Amino acid sequence: MVKAKHESCCPVEKTMLIVGKRWTPLIIRDLVSGKKRFGELERSLGGISPKTLSQRLSELEEWGIVNREIFAEVPVRVEYSLTEKGLGLKQIIDSMADWGNHWLKEANEIPAANK
Amino acid sequence: MVKAKHESCCPVEKTMLIVGKRWTPLIIRDLVSGKKRFGELERSLGGISPKTLSQRLSELEEWGIVNREIFAEVPVRVEYSLTEKGLGLKQIIDSMADWGNHWLKEANEIPAANK
Repeated sequence: MVKAKHESCCPVEKTMLIVGKRWTPLIIRDLVSGKKRFGELERSLGGISPKTLSQRLSELEEWGIVNREIFAEVPVRVEYSLTEKGLGLKQIIDSMADWGNHWLKEANEIPAANK
Repeated sequence: MVKAKHESCCPVEKTMLIVGKRWTPLIIRDLVSGKKRFGELERSLGGISPKTLSQRLSELEEWGIVNREIFAEVPVRVEYSLTEKGLGLKQIIDSMADWGNHWLKEANEIPAANK
């Protein structure tokens, strides 16, 4: 009984293992509008370290969410885009934006820190 | 320019400060179906410590997402439910469940750990 209940939670839990990580929802949000180069993502995410961005992109690529395309130019051009699986996350990101816009307008409605 | 871009990300970032915390999406999911007592949540969330559940519920109450009702009975009965603001998070949780159900069916599609 308890096991069945626990199994039923899995889709939310499993999705959270991916989108619950710091920066990941913001990377997906920035890629929804189209393919981006590493430097473009770094700038639009203002504050992420290159090491963390690189880690996040590798994970997302490994999970089939982000596609990495390499163009044999000089210097080499690398572009990141969302796969079909990644584009499926748009609904989650949009819902977060809607809720935040509606309910967290005032500064005092925002948690001070992610404890 | 960079500042404006950063400001535009805020709703997703701010929402993540709330729903990005471990257990929080699962607590909300369990309260969507109706009010629950502490022990009921503890059981349905299988694996959460009473201390963590208590912390999460206090935070959610502080942010106006969860309502805590105390009934003067012996022993005292305490029930937790979602406020209107909390019910607004249902769309995010539902989207996570939909995506997880569709894209993470196989065991090897689930990240091994939340690094």
